[in-house]
Amino acid sequence: MNVLILGAGQLARMMSLAGAPLNLHISAFDVNSGNTVHPLTREVLGQGLASAIERADVITAEFEHIAPDILEQCQASGKFLPGAEAILTGGDRRIEKSVLDKAGVNNAPYNVINQREDYDAAISKLGLPLILKSALDGYDGKGQWRIKSTEDVEATWQSVEAFLADADDRQCVIAETFIPFDREVSLIGVRGANGDTAMYPLTENIHTDGILSVSVAADDNHALQQQAEQMFKAVADALNYVGVLAIEFFDVDGTLMVNEIAPRVHNSGHWTQQGAWVCQFENHLRAVCGLPLGDTSRVAPTAMINMVGHVNVPQAIMSGCHLHWYDKAPRPGRKIGHINVTAASREALAEQLTTLSQALDSTEFPAVKEAAERLR
Amino acid sequence: MNVLILGAGQLARMMSLAGAPLNLHISAFDVNSGNTVHPLTREVLGQGLASAIERADVITAEFEHIAPDILEQCQASGKFLPGAEAILTGGDRRIEKSVLDKAGVNNAPYNVINQREDYDAAISKLGLPLILKSALDGYDGKGQWRIKSTEDVEATWQSVEAFLADADDRQCVIAETFIPFDREVSLIGVRGANGDTAMYPLTENIHTDGILSVSVAADDNHALQQQAEQMFKAVADALNYVGVLAIEFFDVDGTLMVNEIAPRVHNSGHWTQQGAWVCQFENHLRAVCGLPLGDTSRVAPTAMINMVGHVNVPQAIMSGCHLHWYDKAPRPGRKIGHINVTAASREALAEQLTTLSQALDSTEFPAVKEAAERLR
Repeated sequence: MNVLILGAGQLARMMSLAGAPLNLHISAFDVNSGNTVHPLTREVLGQGLASAIERADVITAEFEHIAPDILEQCQASGKFLPGAEAILTGGDRRIEKSVLDKAGVNNAPYNVINQREDYDAAISKLGLPLILKSALDGYDGKGQWRIKSTEDVEATWQSVEAFLADADDRQCVIAETFIPFDREVSLIGVRGANGDTAMYPLTENIHTDGILSVSVAADDNHALQQQAEQMFKAVADALNYVGVLAIEFFDVDGTLMVNEIAPRVHNSGHWTQQGAWVCQFENHLRAVCGLPLGDTSRVAPTAMINMVGHVNVPQAIMSGCHLHWYDKAPRPGRKIGHINVTAASREALAEQLTTLSQALDSTEFPAVKEAAERLR
Repeated sequence: MNVLILGAGQLARMMSLAGAPLNLHISAFDVNSGNTVHPLTREVLGQGLASAIERADVITAEFEHIAPDILEQCQASGKFLPGAEAILTGGDRRIEKSVLDKAGVNNAPYNVINQREDYDAAISKLGLPLILKSALDGYDGKGQWRIKSTEDVEATWQSVEAFLADADDRQCVIAETFIPFDREVSLIGVRGANGDTAMYPLTENIHTDGILSVSVAADDNHALQQQAEQMFKAVADALNYVGVLAIEFFDVDGTLMVNEIAPRVHNSGHWTQQGAWVCQFENHLRAVCGLPLGDTSRVAPTAMINMVGHVNVPQAIMSGCHLHWYDKAPRPGRKIGHINVTAASREALAEQLTTLSQALDSTEFPAVKEAAERLR
């Protein structure tokens, strides 16, 4: 079976590694070059989207910020899963918020801002502090503003106004009530075409400067898991979703509130490569290819540590963990790999993370120590 | 780091999948075509051995039946691990038996046969029944004879004589005392350049018509494991071995006797992809690339079932196991993939194998039921 992935980054790469044992032939459409490439070797396999679609049995995506004309072409082929609507939902905060509302899942109150009147209305309706996010292309902390107090209102508007003036017509800004959350958790789940779902245990995430630093899957809070799974089902059913869907939540004193969704395999699910019986990459492929879903249960408590930018990784740590490099040149802020650490127990995982925090540079790996401390 | 593998079959393919996350660039020298190819995509990367050796940082092998001139060229580069001596040992039963003797490990008494006098001497020295094996190219049951009683002596000699007459000068036949073993087990271990070793738990193997059918890693017999590990160390040290080395044993009432060794990753170690923390493919690459060895301990009781020739695999079984296809066209006797099954306990594994034996055709998968029964 030939699977075409929109996007040729590390997520496509890891899907190709997971798909090879299933005899799935994975190619990746690089939206920048217009070439279809092998996501592991970068071998150019073809040119142009039309021929790539033609050769594919199934089309899926590794990211959600895809031009509408590409989505339309894929959708028209009838081979696209989870499909244009789901990708648009993940790629446009305005659509995402309306889908969350429609699915009836708990999420922060919001207002759409196109002009100054909307901005003032948002402040008066939602109060301060406020978070503002660009509707399109907003991930890893880009296109975000925070209004802490009335003193920030004018300066922030200058910035938002300039941003909107520069942006294309589809762009807008979403103002959301600031949620004073205890921590961020995410749920990675998968839904098959027949409506079957399978969900991984919740992952706790620590971000640094808006970029995911560490994800830890060691929690056994059944009440929280149940809340998350109910919301996953509501959202996935609303979108008639097929594939892996990631949902990021705020944990506010034991009550979950959806922050955002990603219609794809997700960085906070990379721990499943060692920590779960069947990883998110394989399960996404199983779902979009119509194969039975694999076991999502946890093998052992596991942490995932991102490698971002220029990092020094002493070889010695390899004796106790798994490295996953993406074969990418390091640049500041660029994810170039991750480290998976598994342990027999929560306590042993805390121990291993403490050891790792001593072996790794704390400016390069800013959240490992905190992750260890949170486990104690 | 560029790793060149001699041989471009499924073992090279699985090494490439295991090496990609370590940023290892794996290429494979196809000894038949003389091309260097990517072992996963089959993309031709170069032509001729000399240029392949030139581009490689490390050279290793996925099989042991390699022409001496190729081995010499690789050895001369100074990059070849485990090296020509180890590969020759695995590829020539005469050398293998003398290495086993030199290492002082328990193995069946034997005689080398080049002519009729050797044959008669073997019978009179070792007695009957006898097993005869060609020294070269003898695997998966090819080039083997069995003399059960004196009635077989003449007919077998006709066949052996014809075989030797046809063969090249390096060929001979090894006569070995028939060992009435209870079962066959194998140990997969890895040794680093610094002499560090790490060993997987013993695997019990069931062969059908000389081809491995099922391997089960569910045993916790510490005395047996200890015997096997001591013999592994003796052999690996004798060869100053670097990489994964597989040793097949006869279990004779709790005493192990080495049957044969394979200087490479091995079919009876495929279970480690799901059943061990770091699989044999990754550990072989770690060793030959000078990286720290990974954890060889067992995650859970696991069975590996070979897919040989034309087989029907109902998709439904995928909900409970991992499929590993090799992207090969089926032919009678050709290994085209394997199935890994893990379970929480020995009993649960027996249960799962029983269920599988009902889902799979017993002529296509002849040993699944027996594997389940042996676990009870």
